Amino acid sequence: MKPAKLRTAVLGATGYAGCELVRLLLRHPKVETPILLTRETTTAPERLDAHYPALKGDIPLPLEPFSWELLERRGVRLLFLATPHELSRDLAPAALDKSLRIVDLSGAWRLKDSRNRAVYAFADKDKEKAERWDKEAVYGLPELHRRKIAEGRLIANPGCYATSVILGLFPLAKAGLIDRSAGVVCDSKSGVSGAGKKPTSKTHFVEVAGNFSAYSVFGHRHTGEILEQVGLEEEELVFTPHLLPIPRGILSTLHVRLQRQATAEQIQRLYHDAYNGCSFIRIFEPGELPQIQYSLYTNDCDIGFQLAPSGKRLIVVSCLDNLMKGAAGQAVQNMNLLSGFAEDDGLR
Amino acid sequence: MKPAKLRTAVLGATGYAGCELVRLLLRHPKVETPILLTRETTTAPERLDAHYPALKGDIPLPLEPFSWELLERRGVRLLFLATPHELSRDLAPAALDKSLRIVDLSGAWRLKDSRNRAVYAFADKDKEKAERWDKEAVYGLPELHRRKIAEGRLIANPGCYATSVILGLFPLAKAGLIDRSAGVVCDSKSGVSGAGKKPTSKTHFVEVAGNFSAYSVFGHRHTGEILEQVGLEEEELVFTPHLLPIPRGILSTLHVRLQRQATAEQIQRLYHDAYNGCSFIRIFEPGELPQIQYSLYTNDCDIGFQLAPSGKRLIVVSCLDNLMKGAAGQAVQNMNLLSGFAEDDGLR
Amino acid sequence: MKPAKLRTAVLGATGYAGCELVRLLLRHPKVETPILLTRETTTAPERLDAHYPALKGDIPLPLEPFSWELLERRGVRLLFLATPHELSRDLAPAALDKSLRIVDLSGAWRLKDSRNRAVYAFADKDKEKAERWDKEAVYGLPELHRRKIAEGRLIANPGCYATSVILGLFPLAKAGLIDRSAGVVCDSKSGVSGAGKKPTSKTHFVEVAGNFSAYSVFGHRHTGEILEQVGLEEEELVFTPHLLPIPRGILSTLHVRLQRQATAEQIQRLYHDAYNGCSFIRIFEPGELPQIQYSLYTNDCDIGFQLAPSGKRLIVVSCLDNLMKGAAGQAVQNMNLLSGFAEDDGLR
Amino acid sequence: MKPAKLRTAVLGATGYAGCELVRLLLRHPKVETPILLTRETTTAPERLDAHYPALKGDIPLPLEPFSWELLERRGVRLLFLATPHELSRDLAPAALDKSLRIVDLSGAWRLKDSRNRAVYAFADKDKEKAERWDKEAVYGLPELHRRKIAEGRLIANPGCYATSVILGLFPLAKAGLIDRSAGVVCDSKSGVSGAGKKPTSKTHFVEVAGNFSAYSVFGHRHTGEILEQVGLEEEELVFTPHLLPIPRGILSTLHVRLQRQATAEQIQRLYHDAYNGCSFIRIFEPGELPQIQYSLYTNDCDIGFQLAPSGKRLIVVSCLDNLMKGAAGQAVQNMNLLSGFAEDDGLR
Repeated sequence: MKPAKLRTAVLGATGYAGCELVRLLLRHPKVETPILLTRETTTAPERLDAHYPALKGDIPLPLEPFSWELLERRGVRLLFLATPHELSRDLAPAALDKSLRIVDLSGAWRLKDSRNRAVYAFADKDKEKAERWDKEAVYGLPELHRRKIAEGRLIANPGCYATSVILGLFPLAKAGLIDRSAGVVCDSKSGVSGAGKKPTSKTHFVEVAGNFSAYSVFGHRHTGEILEQVGLEEEELVFTPHLLPIPRGILSTLHVRLQRQATAEQIQRLYHDAYNGCSFIRIFEPGELPQIQYSLYTNDCDIGFQLAPSGKRLIVVSCLDNLMKGAAGQAVQNMNLLSGFAEDDGLR
Repeated sequence: MKPAKLRTAVLGATGYAGCELVRLLLRHPKVETPILLTRETTTAPERLDAHYPALKGDIPLPLEPFSWELLERRGVRLLFLATPHELSRDLAPAALDKSLRIVDLSGAWRLKDSRNRAVYAFADKDKEKAERWDKEAVYGLPELHRRKIAEGRLIANPGCYATSVILGLFPLAKAGLIDRSAGVVCDSKSGVSGAGKKPTSKTHFVEVAGNFSAYSVFGHRHTGEILEQVGLEEEELVFTPHLLPIPRGILSTLHVRLQRQATAEQIQRLYHDAYNGCSFIRIFEPGELPQIQYSLYTNDCDIGFQLAPSGKRLIVVSCLDNLMKGAAGQAVQNMNLLSGFAEDDGLR
Repeated sequence: MKPAKLRTAVLGATGYAGCELVRLLLRHPKVETPILLTRETTTAPERLDAHYPALKGDIPLPLEPFSWELLERRGVRLLFLATPHELSRDLAPAALDKSLRIVDLSGAWRLKDSRNRAVYAFADKDKEKAERWDKEAVYGLPELHRRKIAEGRLIANPGCYATSVILGLFPLAKAGLIDRSAGVVCDSKSGVSGAGKKPTSKTHFVEVAGNFSAYSVFGHRHTGEILEQVGLEEEELVFTPHLLPIPRGILSTLHVRLQRQATAEQIQRLYHDAYNGCSFIRIFEPGELPQIQYSLYTNDCDIGFQLAPSGKRLIVVSCLDNLMKGAAGQAVQNMNLLSGFAEDDGLR
Repeated sequence: MKPAKLRTAVLGATGYAGCELVRLLLRHPKVETPILLTRETTTAPERLDAHYPALKGDIPLPLEPFSWELLERRGVRLLFLATPHELSRDLAPAALDKSLRIVDLSGAWRLKDSRNRAVYAFADKDKEKAERWDKEAVYGLPELHRRKIAEGRLIANPGCYATSVILGLFPLAKAGLIDRSAGVVCDSKSGVSGAGKKPTSKTHFVEVAGNFSAYSVFGHRHTGEILEQVGLEEEELVFTPHLLPIPRGILSTLHVRLQRQATAEQIQRLYHDAYNGCSFIRIFEPGELPQIQYSLYTNDCDIGFQLAPSGKRLIVVSCLDNLMKGAAGQAVQNMNLLSGFAEDDGLR
């Protein structure tokens, strides 16, 4: 007898990450067609393929009004929240009370340090409960926290920029190779889908095409995640996001001064050791650098580096698809771990 | 003694066409710095370069609240309307009553035939006056109506698509070469700035980049202009607009069956004759076709063609910059004619 | 016992279509890792992922020197030719003599009418044998020739443009609805990967980005395929290709005058009937038009239409991914038919 | 009597920078139509507009074979070299012997320190003469060396990247505000025209569109210019170039740790003081950052910055058009200084 497939629901399927998540779940061998939930009260019944004609096909994809009763009645075990931060902050504790497992794609539950959370200014009603879940939530970066994720109940799916930066720096930090006194400069560049589906003057084609710009300098919300996961103090990190005139993909250029002179072979071994057994990390040969194109539409994070002739300065380049490893793909990876599936089920 | 410069005002400078117009007027040798008018009641005084940082510079560009009194006090002689159709429909007659000359960039006054105007469903308050101006308004395509424009008071600046199609077909129509029974197929493609500055899901970078689509098939508002200027009946013309993933530029591919067999030399002579003395028409050698890139940021309309080996079918390709010859550049060309300046003043 | 997987080889894997084909074969459940063949004599052994770093992964992808002996020794049953026309013309008959089945992605074997073949000016050594295979080769468009393909030995994979045009026109032609006297105007637009991987001034980023152009007007090689498959005479068809500033995707705008007045429902029924059971054709609702983005990275051909208010003119829009349904995806679909697999195996 | 116009010649007009230079010279009020020289021996006479159809117009633009005799006969006073480094290295001394003034757009004469020149590995025939000109050549960055340029004979037009980085760092360096011990990280991004007109796999549209990549990390030739002009040692600077999927424009993100705490007002004043009277530098308000779009098609270098809350770290963003302020526009600016014209003649 075949084991029953996992029943999941997605709240927020009409955004870019939510829709990508649905695409992945639809072809996942161990998951049923997900229930698509919406909190917008529309007069007419809607279908997801009205928002994303690319999803047109044999399977109907109705958007159903969110209710706890519906989730229970349909036997949902895992709820994906592709919702605004405040809504995740509000819904996750209630869902956990009902024994649902949560993979939350927002920034609501990623930060352990309340100083870092301050940037979100969450308006929790039940502050005590929220803080309890702040502690219990697991930062859903499998390459760092695989075991905890498997045992977790509330998985905070990492930010897209943060994923690319943390995965690029983690082996160096673990080895104590970062000269923290010089500061780490993380110059990151993202495609436009990272800015969300809502049309704004910043995402208007004419304003983006042929253009390039820095934004949120010294103030981006992913900074806290990087500090906590890499183990740096605020003054030891500069994170500078930029908007690329492409639909998707992130490339982070990480400038590090080394604590001690190193050889390219040592650096490479360090990365291979740190990510031993991680099927979604591709480490490039020394001097060979990944490009955004290589990992688009995959769940891979590509990492390459160039060591200065002096052996004292290192530039690490880390690339991923912001909607895959930076959002929906990683969410499925987390679901796989939570559910005892193979980590790459439905992701190849 | 130097002659006094022309005083102009622009209502609607914050849109793409309006801003391009301001850029042109700022460097026009015979025009004063234009007065920029807005009908939005903002609490704080605004400057155009807050909307278009590319305009930052030595000249302050304040947006001033529109009033007839202001126009009179500042001695404005020519008013550019880069406004929605309805607003142009409302303001133009009032302005003409005050002896202002008008170059209107909207679709309000372009159509002579009331059946063609029906698509706009204008809600004129004073219908009689509106119809009088419908008759008196001059279609501002200098290559066809140079003399009338010079003597006009209300110039209806043509649509961007319409300009490219009409200029491509006019010499053939004039020569009676179009086989009207077969129908003329005008397959046009435009950059995104033609869709305006307002952010919508249709102009979101992620929806446009890497994409291409047809729209308003059998229903685009520029169809009437083409019919009237080329002299075709509705069933003799198909006009199919498409959205290109580029910021600016229009290319129209015009498929014509000829009334009688022709040689490439005859066709070329026809175009040269029809546009003799027109400084903004560039006619290409037979078999050489213009590309959008060639005329970007210029007021040129480039025209090339390929004749079928049979000599009975012709494909004409017509290119222009939709914000220049398709809007602001043509508006300046019209201003030049209206004001007795050289036709290309400020346009090279 | 599991049935043995099919052994295939790809000659020409380093081009865009060849590489896409390898990607598809690698994840096909019923096919072994394909043998990658090259006819370039390189000094060093090469791997495909050196050309396409996106293919980096666990499976080594060596490029091996082409030889008949190698094919035989490795038990290859099906050979994909992603080679220049002349080379396909040369190799296919030899391969067929050795009882290999061939899916040829070039234009070598697509045309039945020698007048249409003239445009290629093939320099066949054994003319008689070539003509025999010209007759026996099957035009590999499954939606039209499914049965013949299944029984074929030499499958001529259709041109990318041709696929989009033929699939858009076929139901109308079959129903005798095309008014051939007016001529059918096929205005097609393709992404740059259609022009191949070789760097030329025409594919230089700076020449393409922000640009758009028509080319090969009245002279494109796919014209013959369209004529033969749709059943039109040369003077009844105009096919006008354009280069879009996007990497992949084709949209064809097909302008048809109808032989008799029709309703949208009739047209839609016609398409549904003609493509009944075809899993890679998505027919849109009347008035709803496909866009290039919808079918990218899929093997689908999307078809939509808009009928003129008169019911006498029709515009059909047909979209596909030129590397998938326009090349590699269709090649796999043909392999599936040839091999008795499900038609969509490895294509979802 | 009107003064005679300056006679110039351009060698290398068919490249992107050379062509842009011709465009500028054609509309310069004090310069005659430039003579266009080529060293390629073509059988047929050529015109520049065959390479750049956008230049089609009334003025014929023949490409003439280079010879010293021609330059003398036509009274050329100023020769622009838009040539490969080696050719500039060869031709410039010969031209100077003939009393021509030179603006050289290559990297041949930019570097004073022979260690920095080593990266070019110049194969000078007359080493002594070359070294003399190495000393006498003036680095053509008007904002730093206006007076020397005016009196110079051989002007080494700066590199595009170098211009953006040097102009962004110079005021800080001058004020001794850079904490050199921490290192300056210059993360620069350029459009594709910077890579030249020759088609290569790196400039193929399909490889660039939707992509982004770092290159020449720890090894780009512009590094030496930055070191020499800003006054840093090699180990104090990291310069990391990236390729943007846009045709033109450079944005440099400059990460600086300050020698002492500063306020935004102090930083801003510093920039205004350093560039007082420089008409092509636009300094933005604190916290307001330039974007590539703002300075495209102008000779402006836009500079903005964001100070960290601590007042100890600064991010400077510097933008320019690589073909204008980064090449041809700056060459004209240098010509203006050399010739006693107003610095912005022909550049507005």
